[in-house]
Amino acid sequence: MTVDFPNKQTQGYEIAIAAGSLEGLGEKLINLGLGKKSKKVLIVSNPVIFKHYGDRTVNSLASEGFEVASLILPAGERFKTAASLQKIYDAALHNKLERSSIIVALGGGVIGDMAGYAAATWLRGLDFVQVPTTLLAMVDSAIGGKTGINHPQGKNLIGAFHQPRLVWTDPEVLKTLPAREFRAAMAEVIKYGVIWDRELFEQLSACQRLDQIRYLQPETLYLILVHCAKAKAEIVSKDEKEGNLRAILNYGHTVGHAIEMVTNYRKFNHGEAVGLGMVIAGAIAVELGFWQQSDQEAQLELIYKAKLPTKLPQDIDPKQIIAAMSQDKKVDRGKVIFIMPKAIGSAIVTDQVDLDTVYKVLQI
Amino acid sequence: MTVDFPNKQTQGYEIAIAAGSLEGLGEKLINLGLGKKSKKVLIVSNPVIFKHYGDRTVNSLASEGFEVASLILPAGERFKTAASLQKIYDAALHNKLERSSIIVALGGGVIGDMAGYAAATWLRGLDFVQVPTTLLAMVDSAIGGKTGINHPQGKNLIGAFHQPRLVWTDPEVLKTLPAREFRAAMAEVIKYGVIWDRELFEQLSACQRLDQIRYLQPETLYLILVHCAKAKAEIVSKDEKEGNLRAILNYGHTVGHAIEMVTNYRKFNHGEAVGLGMVIAGAIAVELGFWQQSDQEAQLELIYKAKLPTKLPQDIDPKQIIAAMSQDKKVDRGKVIFIMPKAIGSAIVTDQVDLDTVYKVLQI
Repeated sequence: MTVDFPNKQTQGYEIAIAAGSLEGLGEKLINLGLGKKSKKVLIVSNPVIFKHYGDRTVNSLASEGFEVASLILPAGERFKTAASLQKIYDAALHNKLERSSIIVALGGGVIGDMAGYAAATWLRGLDFVQVPTTLLAMVDSAIGGKTGINHPQGKNLIGAFHQPRLVWTDPEVLKTLPAREFRAAMAEVIKYGVIWDRELFEQLSACQRLDQIRYLQPETLYLILVHCAKAKAEIVSKDEKEGNLRAILNYGHTVGHAIEMVTNYRKFNHGEAVGLGMVIAGAIAVELGFWQQSDQEAQLELIYKAKLPTKLPQDIDPKQIIAAMSQDKKVDRGKVIFIMPKAIGSAIVTDQVDLDTVYKVLQI
Repeated sequence: MTVDFPNKQTQGYEIAIAAGSLEGLGEKLINLGLGKKSKKVLIVSNPVIFKHYGDRTVNSLASEGFEVASLILPAGERFKTAASLQKIYDAALHNKLERSSIIVALGGGVIGDMAGYAAATWLRGLDFVQVPTTLLAMVDSAIGGKTGINHPQGKNLIGAFHQPRLVWTDPEVLKTLPAREFRAAMAEVIKYGVIWDRELFEQLSACQRLDQIRYLQPETLYLILVHCAKAKAEIVSKDEKEGNLRAILNYGHTVGHAIEMVTNYRKFNHGEAVGLGMVIAGAIAVELGFWQQSDQEAQLELIYKAKLPTKLPQDIDPKQIIAAMSQDKKVDRGKVIFIMPKAIGSAIVTDQVDLDTVYKVLQI
């Protein structure tokens, strides 16, 4: 499928999903006309991913005549820093990347965000290719052109919109993804079903083991990846730079971020917090009459089947959640912005959720 | 005049030039609809400029209800670094800038480039306003959306295209500009005459004291500013992201940069080196039959009248210049890219200049 931008100024790009496709990356870049002027490619990756998939990626590129250099950065959100970015710049300089050279991100969201930001800003913009290796990157962060790094005081405060020239997804690589990471990303998968794609929601409902589909049902996983990528592509095509529609992607995130903050980013990972945030946002939506109790139960069932937490731990004080929400960057003119599901496959953005209702729901 | 982009995706903007306009900045921002959501403005400036013009700028904004913070950074190219950028980010954080807040650059090219880059990347992009206070910034760097910082190994290696929402030029402020800086910028003014605007060239030819017009002929200076801004605006409108046409702006820069490098950025400032580069590029163009000797002499006359150097010092070895040129980032697939004037007001980009001819001309 492709991401096309109606304005025709931003170049559209293909999202290609195929098992075993990693070996075909070099040929694909040639077919896209990349590497015509400069054959230099810088792969940015992390140690574990590069150990598993580095050789295949490098060989695929080298066999098509690319001059490949690689930079391995430590894994994890805490390394998404100006210091890591500087290492990418230094590698770009050392390897004499030119304006027509290519940066390839081989990794998850952290690698993709940093490598994409370096590609956005080195020589004012190089071609960039996403090869996502986590479920979360495949369905979310690799698509849509958001790139950036963290500031010591906050996540993603420094960044740029820089669309990739290609998103090249090989579902085979998910077999080595840690189980908890796979489950967590399932929260975002379910999110697309709730806010955008009823058919996806039904496919997920028909699966018995959402946490195990990469081993038990690879064909279903493939279909899910296609649906999610299509949902994200449709949403960002219509709203490249986060005007309004794109905000619905934050479903579950208003409360989710607050839960992450209150638990010091330790107890839950991002996907787990978002799953909880969706449960709570859904309950608020029922409370306020935005959607039906039966839809909320169907959503809950999916989150449960993904083996994700469905209840806020007793030791978290709802008051802390409320306080954390008030500081979120999704606050606009002092009002907390909420994404409310209206039906399975449809959601709206509203600032009409009062914190009293949130507090009431959190206490249930 | 306005800078409009044919694609309609990039928002166009006005370049307003008027003596004494500094006091009207706040009102202008309101008229443009800026500050509707967030009233926060961060002014980035340098010590001397802020001492002269800071109060007027702050008062103009504050009187329209803006909440104004300011950050003063040390002046000079050597401070166009990641460390200075970090200070802007910290000020943005400290002053709680939101996505709809505004960054104003009050200064020359260094301040404009850094503040613009911070505006391009903080929260993935804030509104940005250029208030250029040097002749060079007024005619060149403030227009066109190039922003960035230096890497220890090279100038402008890190950057982004981020168009300002407004370029607000008050020629009155040029009265405090150091004389050498004024003269140096005149090289870029003459450049527009040669590569783009025959009428401008003729206006310049009619002036007796190009180095003194800010005092002797303010009306002529105004006309020159309008012509230069219009030239730059036309060129960048047609080629926002430096595809091809925009390259003609590098007239005089291929040799000019080499001269700066060979003299360790000490003997000549940028404009002086560009002036020399134009003399040499013009001589090459005559040698290769691109343009006429009489045009070259008319160009030389202007550079001389601007009190800019017109001859390479004897102690510079032409071989060093050739070596430095070979390392320039305007090298494309191993060939040195030259801008050659064809007539007064017209230039082309070519890779057909062989280094033997350059060497021959350098020895004259």
